[in-house]
Amino acid sequence: MRATALQAKLFIDLPMISRSKIQFVISLQRKKVRDKEKLFVIEGDKMVREYLMSEKPVRYLIAKPEFISSIPAGLAGRAEETIPVSFDDLRKISTLKTPHNAIAVVPVPEAEPAHDIVPAGLCAALDFIQDPGNLGTIIRAAAWFGIKDIICSNECVDLYNPKVIQATMGAFLNVTVRYSDLSVFLENARKQGLPVYATLTEGEPVYETGLTDTGVILLGNESRGISGELLQYVTTRLSIPKFTKARYGIDSLNVGMAAAVVFSEFARRTYSK
Amino acid sequence: MRATALQAKLFIDLPMISRSKIQFVISLQRKKVRDKEKLFVIEGDKMVREYLMSEKPVRYLIAKPEFISSIPAGLAGRAEETIPVSFDDLRKISTLKTPHNAIAVVPVPEAEPAHDIVPAGLCAALDFIQDPGNLGTIIRAAAWFGIKDIICSNECVDLYNPKVIQATMGAFLNVTVRYSDLSVFLENARKQGLPVYATLTEGEPVYETGLTDTGVILLGNESRGISGELLQYVTTRLSIPKFTKARYGIDSLNVGMAAAVVFSEFARRTYSK
Repeated sequence: MRATALQAKLFIDLPMISRSKIQFVISLQRKKVRDKEKLFVIEGDKMVREYLMSEKPVRYLIAKPEFISSIPAGLAGRAEETIPVSFDDLRKISTLKTPHNAIAVVPVPEAEPAHDIVPAGLCAALDFIQDPGNLGTIIRAAAWFGIKDIICSNECVDLYNPKVIQATMGAFLNVTVRYSDLSVFLENARKQGLPVYATLTEGEPVYETGLTDTGVILLGNESRGISGELLQYVTTRLSIPKFTKARYGIDSLNVGMAAAVVFSEFARRTYSK
Repeated sequence: MRATALQAKLFIDLPMISRSKIQFVISLQRKKVRDKEKLFVIEGDKMVREYLMSEKPVRYLIAKPEFISSIPAGLAGRAEETIPVSFDDLRKISTLKTPHNAIAVVPVPEAEPAHDIVPAGLCAALDFIQDPGNLGTIIRAAAWFGIKDIICSNECVDLYNPKVIQATMGAFLNVTVRYSDLSVFLENARKQGLPVYATLTEGEPVYETGLTDTGVILLGNESRGISGELLQYVTTRLSIPKFTKARYGIDSLNVGMAAAVVFSEFARRTYSK
């Protein structure tokens, strides 16, 4: 306890974060800057701690002295630079209304070269998912249900958008997300003889359809669904049965929820085996 | 077409919305004002249209002239007052970054007196759901999977928060949401001999557990889970199996997704019958 108090005191004497660094971290909220700098931002005590534990590289650890004191020195030392900051400075940098105690600026992993190769197991293909919260929760659900690869159409929201990363709650560490032209990707799936499942309003009830443990689960845009030109690649049309006869306000499920239900159903089949 | 153009022209000559009415609608973003005025706001072309079709009462229909012209006169006439507005005025009123074309101010339905009576079918009880998006999507999933009643703990976010209504995408029309002391509510469920299912990290795999078509599905707070004092009422602890061995970033599913998966699993049992 005394060592921690001493550490905290020492931090207070350290120079605070520079205005230019604050501006730099804020600028990473923009995709253009992220693409140029090949860096993105992770926010939140738990997510930052788990990122540090995952032994991936860290450029800056920007955190309240209490946070830095609370983690093992070896973890904090994994950052190229550790910058203790006041709550006020954190608030300036944060994209959240109420900032957490820690932010990490970390490198974007090197893109894998072969973007159009279909993964061996089950994967999800996302056609123009716009909402950051939706992409984030889909990644979180995919990770939970053992789907290790997500292929986003080039129109999808950027994985490194702070709201996407936030919504994954760290699950981005466990899922490989690639961006691709889905026509090319699904054409490759077809060439490899892999099934392409699509979640649509009209389709076979997912509860009663034979589901494999390889192939592609294709999910469409929040309001427009799956693009017409991609439907030709679909081998099985799935639907989630609706258990209501209500006439209004019940056209569809949120795409993130539909993803969770369908992923769960694929996983359940392997669970019962 | 000519009639519509004429109608649109007529609207242009109408007085625009008053500043005090704009302020009034904005003030409804606050729960205190909603509670006092017993009014809430619905936003979005589709949701407003469906609300009008549902034949529920409408105080103000505030919309672009094009929207008003586009719906049958009988529908627009269902509002006590129809106010054509410019896009700029809509933007002032809207809680969305990009406003839709229509907003309706509608009365809060009269609260049902018996808040603690357990509904006959399957219902969901929500313990301290804080995030408006989560409450909204849980309502949307409940409606889809045939759950007609949701009992919120008094600490849950307000149903009539604009973000909650938005996230339901209109499903609030089909689900009765009540606020209650969950201890009292669950005590009543116990007295009636109804099962109380809870979704927890540790529990029987939901895929393999016997599930009934009556009872309560209890879901907990986003980070703290279900309150300790409510666990005594739980008759069956359910868990959603995790299909990954990843060590980091995969503690739990988002509560909305967990709700969708569990609701789907309850529904599937009745589907297979």
